[in-house]
Amino acid sequence: MKKVSFQGELGAYSELATYGFFTDNVEVIPKETFAAIFEAVSSKEVDHGIIPIENSLTGSIHENYDLLLKHDLVITGEVKLRIIHNLIVNKGGKLSDVRRIYSHPQAISQCKDFLSSLNDVELISVYDTAGAARKIKGLGTYEDASIASEQAALDYNLDIIKSGIESNHMNYTRFLILSKGLDEQVENSKTSIVFSTKNIPGALFKSLSVFALRDIDLFKIESRPLPGSPWKYMFYIDFDGDIRQDITKKAIAHLEEIASFFKFLGSYQKGQEVIGQIKERHNR
Amino acid sequence: MKKVSFQGELGAYSELATYGFFTDNVEVIPKETFAAIFEAVSSKEVDHGIIPIENSLTGSIHENYDLLLKHDLVITGEVKLRIIHNLIVNKGGKLSDVRRIYSHPQAISQCKDFLSSLNDVELISVYDTAGAARKIKGLGTYEDASIASEQAALDYNLDIIKSGIESNHMNYTRFLILSKGLDEQVENSKTSIVFSTKNIPGALFKSLSVFALRDIDLFKIESRPLPGSPWKYMFYIDFDGDIRQDITKKAIAHLEEIASFFKFLGSYQKGQEVIGQIKERHNR
Repeated sequence: MKKVSFQGELGAYSELATYGFFTDNVEVIPKETFAAIFEAVSSKEVDHGIIPIENSLTGSIHENYDLLLKHDLVITGEVKLRIIHNLIVNKGGKLSDVRRIYSHPQAISQCKDFLSSLNDVELISVYDTAGAARKIKGLGTYEDASIASEQAALDYNLDIIKSGIESNHMNYTRFLILSKGLDEQVENSKTSIVFSTKNIPGALFKSLSVFALRDIDLFKIESRPLPGSPWKYMFYIDFDGDIRQDITKKAIAHLEEIASFFKFLGSYQKGQEVIGQIKERHNR
Repeated sequence: MKKVSFQGELGAYSELATYGFFTDNVEVIPKETFAAIFEAVSSKEVDHGIIPIENSLTGSIHENYDLLLKHDLVITGEVKLRIIHNLIVNKGGKLSDVRRIYSHPQAISQCKDFLSSLNDVELISVYDTAGAARKIKGLGTYEDASIASEQAALDYNLDIIKSGIESNHMNYTRFLILSKGLDEQVENSKTSIVFSTKNIPGALFKSLSVFALRDIDLFKIESRPLPGSPWKYMFYIDFDGDIRQDITKKAIAHLEEIASFFKFLGSYQKGQEVIGQIKERHNR
């Protein structure tokens, strides 16, 4: 059984994504921070890490882009979790009782249409969604509610009084699987890289030409500041293909002629969209 | 005298940037949120807004990119403020007394080398840096310190016990000036736009070609999710030139052939790097 680390507590959306990717064949080891996941994989404490990299509404999780650059791990998988937010209360509570709602700031922001329909309710930011569910369990009142996953409600024996409260249901978070080394050759691959360009005119255009001239589709471009060089950037690109294919190797070799820095981040099967799988376990 | 809104309290870095751009000829009207700045300029409550758009270490402020898309304002100026963080205490306090440090999470993260050299100090996140200075003034103890601007220390009659505690001194925040309409023609201009591409192969490459084929320099590209269309993006581009120049008009007309959506955000003089100007005023 593989050991996999995610950030947050049991019941976090990252845990749902873990089962969405690995199904049941894993032992999960929660970590408090994203950096701790990278360290646990690097030190072989765990076999894999799973990190959110992008939400379809709120955008990229830049801390994880920066950590991918800093650590020598590779991306070996991807999964896109449909995020369903639930309003969760202590057993027997009603919506009209609720006076305070605890959740992660991003979850609060994703439910703003529903939340703005409530009167006289205070919104309180906490570290993670599953932690918010644990908190209201501890408080034990009907006035305190949380926004979290169905798994968190089940784990803490709480009631879901409204499901799907996110403003936009096209709400997916894309997660990446981190490993020490590449898997064997995979089918239907995408490849992720990071590079910076030489100080030449049209540098980014020339960089993208190595893909366009080979009819290689780009899926994503993300720019991050180059620390110590204000207004210069690292570019993260996801594109169609696999590092073990000749055309991909040639595109990368071509890019290295133009780049002042280049790092390969991984080739992996394009991820499926999943709902996440709820697990019965001892209530806490 | 022009009225200008910024986010945060008096003494915030945004206030320093305001004087860095407008010098003394302004009345400042602080707002709690970035959205409130856009609304104040739109409703003509104020003449201009000033918003941070990018920090040279931590990257873009994506909320402001999204607000630029949503509102019909134009960018008419830019200024790059050198961010100097100070450890601030009540008059007479010493570093060895400090047990708690209050500041904005981004300021705390930018000072992590200095902060990790301290023993037995708790770091507490608050809404803004100037508010952190006000808070320790209210507490009145030597155990409570804050990280904020020199202006905040002056305003609240506090002592700076260490200046320049940021880990990387190449720490600049780039601010944009928002207005209802464009200024008269300016010199040394840059132009900001946002667009999404048609669903065609090599769409981003073709979009960038409208600049590259005309030898127009790109300064920045930023991508943001297209809400409701997972894994599709809006691209924000800053490039050399002015909307009132023929070559810029032609490049934009060419881009509109390729784009499924296009919005002009502004043409404005390229910003200077400033330290920010400290103002004597009544202590609070």
